[in-house]
Amino acid sequence: MNVLAIDIGGTKIAAAAVNSDGRILARHEVLLAAAGSPDRALTTIIEAILARVPADELQGVGIGSAGPLDVARGAVSPINIPAWRDHLLVDAVAALLPDRPVRLAGDAQCMALGEWWRGAALDRRSETLLGIVVSTGVGGGWVLDGVPYLGCTGNAGHIGHIAVDLDGDRCSCGSFGCVETIASGPSMTAWARRRGWNGSDARALALAAAEGHPIAVAAFGRAADALATAILTAAVLMDLDRVVIGGGVAAAGSVLFGPLGQAVADRNCLPYTRRLRIGPTTLGRDAGLLGAAALALAPSSPALVPHPPHPPHPQGASL
Amino acid sequence: MNVLAIDIGGTKIAAAAVNSDGRILARHEVLLAAAGSPDRALTTIIEAILARVPADELQGVGIGSAGPLDVARGAVSPINIPAWRDHLLVDAVAALLPDRPVRLAGDAQCMALGEWWRGAALDRRSETLLGIVVSTGVGGGWVLDGVPYLGCTGNAGHIGHIAVDLDGDRCSCGSFGCVETIASGPSMTAWARRRGWNGSDARALALAAAEGHPIAVAAFGRAADALATAILTAAVLMDLDRVVIGGGVAAAGSVLFGPLGQAVADRNCLPYTRRLRIGPTTLGRDAGLLGAAALALAPSSPALVPHPPHPPHPQGASL
Repeated sequence: MNVLAIDIGGTKIAAAAVNSDGRILARHEVLLAAAGSPDRALTTIIEAILARVPADELQGVGIGSAGPLDVARGAVSPINIPAWRDHLLVDAVAALLPDRPVRLAGDAQCMALGEWWRGAALDRRSETLLGIVVSTGVGGGWVLDGVPYLGCTGNAGHIGHIAVDLDGDRCSCGSFGCVETIASGPSMTAWARRRGWNGSDARALALAAAEGHPIAVAAFGRAADALATAILTAAVLMDLDRVVIGGGVAAAGSVLFGPLGQAVADRNCLPYTRRLRIGPTTLGRDAGLLGAAALALAPSSPALVPHPPHPPHPQGASL
Repeated sequence: MNVLAIDIGGTKIAAAAVNSDGRILARHEVLLAAAGSPDRALTTIIEAILARVPADELQGVGIGSAGPLDVARGAVSPINIPAWRDHLLVDAVAALLPDRPVRLAGDAQCMALGEWWRGAALDRRSETLLGIVVSTGVGGGWVLDGVPYLGCTGNAGHIGHIAVDLDGDRCSCGSFGCVETIASGPSMTAWARRRGWNGSDARALALAAAEGHPIAVAAFGRAADALATAILTAAVLMDLDRVVIGGGVAAAGSVLFGPLGQAVADRNCLPYTRRLRIGPTTLGRDAGLLGAAALALAPSSPALVPHPPHPPHPQGASL
C-alpha cells in the first residue's frame, strides 16, 4: 500500500509517495516564493509525484500543515502563507486526487508521528513520545500509548504556548512568557541583538555560540532552560518516555542539547520521569513527510480523527 | 454487572459495591487511625461489603490509591500510610476476592474517571477531561478522547509536580516551585501563617478568606494563580475541554474558584483553549469510588492497562 504525504511548511511545500514500510518512492519540493501562489505550489508538487507514481497506486493522503488548523473542517491558516486563511485544504487536495481518504494534522504532530514510526523511536519502545519543532515558532505533537493524539480540535501538543515565565515578554498569542517568546529562532536572535550581538538569524547565533560568544551561549542557555521546563512539565503530566526535537534551531546541536540535558537533569526529580530520553530528530526534514504518510496509513481510529468541537455544556457547574 | 470499588486515601479506606449504571449498592468506610493497621482496615471494609453483596455477584475490582504507585507490579506506597511501602495491594485484594480481575490506578485518576462517568461531565461531551484533587497534595488524572489515560507507569496527570514558579520554594519532590508548594492545603496554611495569620489548617483559612481576611484572601489568590497556570498548560498541551476540581481545598468554593476563573480568563489566549470549562467536583467523596468502579467495568483496553517500563533504548541519540 502506498500513500501520498504532503508537508506544508512556512516557506515550502513538500510531497512524497510513501509505501507502508516507510520507503519514499518519489519526493518533490517547491519553494512557495518561487511558485507564484500556494495553490500553484500544491498543484505542482502533486502533479510531480503523480508523474512518477500513478494515482491508482496511491490509496490515501496524509497532510501535515503549519497552523493554525481547523481540523474538523479540514481548513488551514498557516501564519507564513497569508494567501491561505481558513483555506479548505482537505477539499482542495481531495479535488486533485478524488475518492481517497485525506487526513490532516499539524506539521509538528506529523513530525512526532514520523519519528515514532521510522525515526528516533523506531523500536516502538517509546510508547509515549513528544515531538518538538523549534524553528520560527515552537510546536509539538504527541504519540500516546503508541497512538497519535491530536486532540479534540486537532491542536494538542502546542508546547510553544505554555507559559514558563509569568514575568516574561508578551507572546504573539496574547499571553506572557510562552516558550516561544524565549526559545524560537526569532526570539533568541532578538534577545541576543538587544544585548549587543550583531548577527542576523538563529543559524548565525548557533555558529557564534559554538565559537563561545558569551551572548550567543547565554541565548541558547536561556532557550534550553525554557525547553527543559516545558519538557519536564510534559513528562510529569503525560508519563512521557521520549522527546525528539527537530527544526532549524535544534539543528544547532550541542549548543542547545548540552545545556538542555543539564537543565533537565538538574530538575528531573520524580522517579517515573527519570526514564525520559531527549534527543534530536533522526529523520531530519523527512520526519514530517513520513508522519503524514503514517497518518494516511494508520488504521481508522477515534484518536486519529479529531472530533468536531462540542456544543456548550447543557448542565453542570462551570466558571 | 456489579464490581467492588476501593478508594485508599491518606486517612481512610472506603469501599463500595457499584453496578454498571453507577449506582452504589453498598458502601463502607474505615478511618485508618481507628483500624489498628491498614491491612486490617482493608479486610474490614471488604468483609463489610461482602456481608451485603455476595462475592459471587461482584465481577471485578477497581482500586484508586494515594501514591506513589507501581502499577505494573500492583504495588502502592501511600505517603500517609507508612506501614505500606511498596505494598503489593493488587495481590492482597486478589487474595481476599479471588478469580476476578483487579485493576489499580491513582486516587486522582479515579476521581477524574468518576467525574467523567457519572459526574460533572455526565453528558460525555467532555471528551478530554482533567480531574484535579487539591488537598494535602495536588494530584490529577486524565480522560482523553473518552478513555482513561494512566500513562506508561500509571503516573500520568501528576499536575501538583509541574513547576509554575522557577524561583519558588523547594518541593518535597526535590524540584522548585511546583504547584503543590503553593496550592496544597499545608502550603497555603504555612504561607499565611508566615505572614501573621493565626489559624491552623486550610479549612480555617477558607473560612477566613470568605470573611475577607486579607492574608487568607491572598493565599487563595496565590493558589488560584498557580492552578490557573497549570490548568492552562494542560489545556494547551492536551486540547482540553473540561477541568473538574475536588479535594478539601476545592471545597472552599468561591474563594478559590472566583480568582481561579479570573486568572484563567486573563491568560487564556488561544482560540482552541477558550472552550475550556472549569468547575468543582459534583460527586464529592464518591468521585474516587465511582471512578474505581468505572476502572473495573471498562472494557479491556491498552490505555487502561499500563505497560511495564521499557528497557533502555538500544539505539538512537539520547542525552
